[in-house]
Amino acid sequence: MHISSQFDSGNIRIIKADSPEDIVLAINPDNQSEFYQWFHFRLFGDAYESHHIKITDLAKSAYPDGWQDYDVLASYDRQSWFRVSSEFDGDTLSFEFTPEQPSVYFAYFIPYSYERHLDLIADAQMFLDCEHKLLGQTLDGRDMSMLVIGQPGEGKKNIWITARQHPGETMAQWCAEGLLYRLLDEEDGLSRKLLNDAVFYIIPNMNPDGAARGHLRTNAVGTNLNREWAAPSAEKSPEVLYVLNAMDEIGVDMYLDLHGDEALPYNFVAGSEGIPAYSPRLKDLEDTFKQTLLAVTPEFQDEYGYPKDKPGEANLSVASNAVGQRFECLAYTFEMPFKDNDDLPDPVFGWSTQRCQQLGEDLLVAIRAVLPKLR
Amino acid sequence: MHISSQFDSGNIRIIKADSPEDIVLAINPDNQSEFYQWFHFRLFGDAYESHHIKITDLAKSAYPDGWQDYDVLASYDRQSWFRVSSEFDGDTLSFEFTPEQPSVYFAYFIPYSYERHLDLIADAQMFLDCEHKLLGQTLDGRDMSMLVIGQPGEGKKNIWITARQHPGETMAQWCAEGLLYRLLDEEDGLSRKLLNDAVFYIIPNMNPDGAARGHLRTNAVGTNLNREWAAPSAEKSPEVLYVLNAMDEIGVDMYLDLHGDEALPYNFVAGSEGIPAYSPRLKDLEDTFKQTLLAVTPEFQDEYGYPKDKPGEANLSVASNAVGQRFECLAYTFEMPFKDNDDLPDPVFGWSTQRCQQLGEDLLVAIRAVLPKLR
Amino acid sequence: MHISSQFDSGNIRIIKADSPEDIVLAINPDNQSEFYQWFHFRLFGDAYESHHIKITDLAKSAYPDGWQDYDVLASYDRQSWFRVSSEFDGDTLSFEFTPEQPSVYFAYFIPYSYERHLDLIADAQMFLDCEHKLLGQTLDGRDMSMLVIGQPGEGKKNIWITARQHPGETMAQWCAEGLLYRLLDEEDGLSRKLLNDAVFYIIPNMNPDGAARGHLRTNAVGTNLNREWAAPSAEKSPEVLYVLNAMDEIGVDMYLDLHGDEALPYNFVAGSEGIPAYSPRLKDLEDTFKQTLLAVTPEFQDEYGYPKDKPGEANLSVASNAVGQRFECLAYTFEMPFKDNDDLPDPVFGWSTQRCQQLGEDLLVAIRAVLPKLR
Amino acid sequence: MHISSQFDSGNIRIIKADSPEDIVLAINPDNQSEFYQWFHFRLFGDAYESHHIKITDLAKSAYPDGWQDYDVLASYDRQSWFRVSSEFDGDTLSFEFTPEQPSVYFAYFIPYSYERHLDLIADAQMFLDCEHKLLGQTLDGRDMSMLVIGQPGEGKKNIWITARQHPGETMAQWCAEGLLYRLLDEEDGLSRKLLNDAVFYIIPNMNPDGAARGHLRTNAVGTNLNREWAAPSAEKSPEVLYVLNAMDEIGVDMYLDLHGDEALPYNFVAGSEGIPAYSPRLKDLEDTFKQTLLAVTPEFQDEYGYPKDKPGEANLSVASNAVGQRFECLAYTFEMPFKDNDDLPDPVFGWSTQRCQQLGEDLLVAIRAVLPKLR
Ligand SMILES: [Ca+2]
Ligand SMILES: [Ca+2]
Ligand SMILES: [Ca+2]
Ligand SMILES: [Ca+2]
Repeated sequence: MHISSQFDSGNIRIIKADSPEDIVLAINPDNQSEFYQWFHFRLFGDAYESHHIKITDLAKSAYPDGWQDYDVLASYDRQSWFRVSSEFDGDTLSFEFTPEQPSVYFAYFIPYSYERHLDLIADAQMFLDCEHKLLGQTLDGRDMSMLVIGQPGEGKKNIWITARQHPGETMAQWCAEGLLYRLLDEEDGLSRKLLNDAVFYIIPNMNPDGAARGHLRTNAVGTNLNREWAAPSAEKSPEVLYVLNAMDEIGVDMYLDLHGDEALPYNFVAGSEGIPAYSPRLKDLEDTFKQTLLAVTPEFQDEYGYPKDKPGEANLSVASNAVGQRFECLAYTFEMPFKDNDDLPDPVFGWSTQRCQQLGEDLLVAIRAVLPKLR
Repeated sequence: MHISSQFDSGNIRIIKADSPEDIVLAINPDNQSEFYQWFHFRLFGDAYESHHIKITDLAKSAYPDGWQDYDVLASYDRQSWFRVSSEFDGDTLSFEFTPEQPSVYFAYFIPYSYERHLDLIADAQMFLDCEHKLLGQTLDGRDMSMLVIGQPGEGKKNIWITARQHPGETMAQWCAEGLLYRLLDEEDGLSRKLLNDAVFYIIPNMNPDGAARGHLRTNAVGTNLNREWAAPSAEKSPEVLYVLNAMDEIGVDMYLDLHGDEALPYNFVAGSEGIPAYSPRLKDLEDTFKQTLLAVTPEFQDEYGYPKDKPGEANLSVASNAVGQRFECLAYTFEMPFKDNDDLPDPVFGWSTQRCQQLGEDLLVAIRAVLPKLR
Repeated sequence: MHISSQFDSGNIRIIKADSPEDIVLAINPDNQSEFYQWFHFRLFGDAYESHHIKITDLAKSAYPDGWQDYDVLASYDRQSWFRVSSEFDGDTLSFEFTPEQPSVYFAYFIPYSYERHLDLIADAQMFLDCEHKLLGQTLDGRDMSMLVIGQPGEGKKNIWITARQHPGETMAQWCAEGLLYRLLDEEDGLSRKLLNDAVFYIIPNMNPDGAARGHLRTNAVGTNLNREWAAPSAEKSPEVLYVLNAMDEIGVDMYLDLHGDEALPYNFVAGSEGIPAYSPRLKDLEDTFKQTLLAVTPEFQDEYGYPKDKPGEANLSVASNAVGQRFECLAYTFEMPFKDNDDLPDPVFGWSTQRCQQLGEDLLVAIRAVLPKLR
Repeated sequence: MHISSQFDSGNIRIIKADSPEDIVLAINPDNQSEFYQWFHFRLFGDAYESHHIKITDLAKSAYPDGWQDYDVLASYDRQSWFRVSSEFDGDTLSFEFTPEQPSVYFAYFIPYSYERHLDLIADAQMFLDCEHKLLGQTLDGRDMSMLVIGQPGEGKKNIWITARQHPGETMAQWCAEGLLYRLLDEEDGLSRKLLNDAVFYIIPNMNPDGAARGHLRTNAVGTNLNREWAAPSAEKSPEVLYVLNAMDEIGVDMYLDLHGDEALPYNFVAGSEGIPAYSPRLKDLEDTFKQTLLAVTPEFQDEYGYPKDKPGEANLSVASNAVGQRFECLAYTFEMPFKDNDDLPDPVFGWSTQRCQQLGEDLLVAIRAVLPKLR
């Protein structure tokens, strides 16, 4: 039996792995950080033998509530990921698995590797409507890439979309991928309509270092990027600095920041009702966006979510608040589940890459609804 | 040079074809009928030589207005169909084409063969959620097939969708195909939600004989099926008889009848405001359906369409009127263009199979919107 | 329960079909002919119910030996065809089948429809190295199409390949398809080498009328084309006339005529040892071809086959003999099984489309071996 | 303008990159080694602007002859790689390139990433006929994976195939992939025949550390694995140790070690004529293998290659010699070009992944030819 994590976004620490009946593991914290929650490892063992796996010390993980009612993801072929029934006792996540093949991967959510990210950027730039902009380099020397879709022009709105500030929230990039490819589809009427009136600036991976390193929440030096938007720095958060500079140069008429939520089993938005610039206009935009998305897909709901900020009490270091405030624009944090959408539970796959992608496609319908009202 | 139409849905008559500079053609009327408008033929000639083609005698075709601003469809590989700029003088449609390959197909709209239809039925039945029902045989001995998607159950709504009563309106089957495959997609949240609450009865081709024979509007014996719903007969319109009997047996809570319109360059619906059973409830259902579809896709609009029937003056031999009246349910004739959607014109492809399919997928969103209000 | 054959290459006659336990069928002879052996029909019945099917009156079929050890082919989705264990008593073929879907197709071999044939021609012509030539029209008005692969030039050899003179031998067209696409593959070194030195003239379907009509052996008017090569006529065998004229015009350096054999469970060749022009040179070419093919694939063998003609006693109305004699060239009838290759039996699929295609690819290796020796 | 290599198998050093007209680069030597030749980097610049790139200091590279007549590989989408005309002056390789997209990758040969390798292993193990064996961990903690294809059994021969001891020779893994998937194809008659009589032990990547690090020739600590087979050690060459131990345990009846040759523009084999155990039997096996491969594909030749070892003078630290000697079996080093096969030159792609894969498929034909003669 062998457990390994020496690959893109791998993260596990072996406490004990002598017997398949008693495998005990722990998760390494992000570099220079105390956050930990993301895991990704491979078990090589005997097919058709029962394996009892425990991931321990989770009471101190970033989101202990995330483990409640959470089922681990597993894959034999690294393409199809299914859920394995798991239990949480407040500190330890336990699951039993009898693999059908000697080698099986486990992860907190479906991984999205840097190789796949580079393939995405490289493929997207081949489309006529898409241009690849290199914003700069990360602290580990990886690319900060932005895809610009549509032709800038007089009166066109600038729509910004960022994903994966928190690198372990891979659903954000799966969702961005779905949105992106619909936008690039030259026979999709919705996309053609949108590109008549708007230009999209998409950063599919805000945190490639954290992603490759197997982090949950921070970049190479332990910075939580989504607390850096008030004052990003080249030393701690160049990723944010690049994007904010580009936003200042180009302008922002609407902003979506894609995330995953560890605890809540729903898709939902967090608005900017707490920013000083909040106004009836912004509220109307938020409502239009939400009402449209509710009509488009049963995967979205507006009942469960974060408590709303009181007026003026928003944390302005958070991306959507900072951008909403700075550009007085519609700005949403969009949250997807690690677990499942409890309104449409799927015991086999849970919240999946295909559902992320479809949600990305559906987001474009809601964007169209607000587009005529932007500024 | 050779022109042929000896294949599925082929239809052309050669008046003159001695020189590529002066090719004169005409369209055969449907069998036992005076309707004609559908054409489908193959030109075999010299690549890189200019061909001047005229289709004549169109003043007496079924929809002379259909030729105004219409561009012929052409394909080398029978997969990708593009538009060829055409002109209409009131009786003759003329176009010039310099093929890049010796062999090129032309058609009124993108063909959907009986072989493809059989493949569709055979493939769909493999899905767990789908059952193939054979309703009976046509007059030429082909199958009348219905696909039932979802598990019938207490309180579930019955949604009926028919396509291609008029066999030359192939866009109806392309659209039905898009709707069908989204419904069969087990990871599509919208479809899962719909199948929790409803069962779909889809007849993707109401008129396989007319389709294979290269008809525009009628079945094997010249019957316009969409005028038979008041009193279908085994002799003239068994296709309608089978479906109406099945509707009586199962019940109908909503009905969409998919069509193509020769003249109008838009997608639109024709409602049942003229049926005796029309009511505020039906009007509300119609409005909800339309408002949702308007929000979902810019391919749909509600400005251009047919003149509305006066109260009580609906033609009850037309499918959507007959079904709306008989079952007091939401019933729409849905029309797609042969030309293009002038709100989003595409000079290269015009209204295309991919757009038909996407519209089929989007129809499901509008169906979800009305579903809780049905009965 | 319903049995139908109203589709491309459909052929069955219902004797009795009242009960799934006693279905009795027969095969219609080819039009204006006494040959019968090809069948293709669809059963619509109750899933999970046992169906007992008998095909009767086979003692008088074209090849009674063909039914011995033969297993019927079945398909739910018209893509994947599998074998159903069958028994033959000298006159009746019997099989039991419990379908998992209500609708299932049965056929003598995997069908290759005229629609697919037209797709093949249309797709192939898009390749730079391929040109579509229309040789003429069949008696039913279908196309006689030839694909020319490679650029004619000084010193290049002319290789001719025909398939499916006998329309029920669909394996011939599946094989031709495999050979064709390898030849069109611009990164395949073997194909590039071949096209440096040779031009290929491929007629993938010699008998489209018989194919569409569901014939075993003859064309629209009951002519066995493979007995027409001594004196083809526009009235009875225009298909042969066109090809022979084209051969005369272009020249032939090698010829393969692809067939299926009803009885023998092997792939084998039938040479032209009985033609007057037979010579040590031709024998050497035959031997080189066979030895190479034996080395390339275990699907080929040279132990079982037809009895060899005595010198000078060949039937010169048969294509390979006629062409071998007329052009003093290597000319082979290549036979594939309806049953299986007993050297590598596959009880699930038997001889299959993929194996046909692979054999087509492998034939090119044997052609390369003889190429330097041709004339 | 920006040049980066911070990704799997990236390797470049920037000397000067201020102006697109004067980009000067160098290649980093393998870790703890003086070998260098592999490069892989991405240029981000202005589309449609001419870029002049020099790779310098190549007189001291591992194979200076490799740059003569070599054309650099480039790709926009990381899938399709094409050649860019390049010149070598004895020390510097120069090429001009005007990209059509802002971002373009350059490499010595088409990269094969560790992510793709893991996908290959994970996908292959899903086939019934294939089992994944984990041999151990590399010095960097990556997997040494072996795929066993076929069911071991009495009298079955053991065929071993290793690829990419030299990690920059990615063609070896592309070739192994082609061979592997043909072997796993359950409808391929050749593969079925082979698996009746033999079991294949395939190590598709002997050196995953060197591969991920962007090395040409050595592992993580600078060891040339193909000089370790006389006395592999856990400290310097665990990769070889694992495989040799597995060979001892299982036995070897035939061995192919797949490589790329930097200088020679041909595919060729290097035999074991210099080992003490060389015998007429081994010579006959070599000849049979070569003669068959010559007949199967024009991509192989036996005219150009390495000088033959004199009897008894073989270097027994080289894999194929060591294994040939130890197991007295047919053992070949198989070399593919970095440049092209000059017998079939392709100026657009040169030697490509598809040609590697086809060669892998064709190797199986030659293996079949020797199989009955093994021991
Ligand atoms: Ca682009
Ligand atoms: Ca089904
Ligand atoms: Ca062509
Ligand atoms: Ca396996």
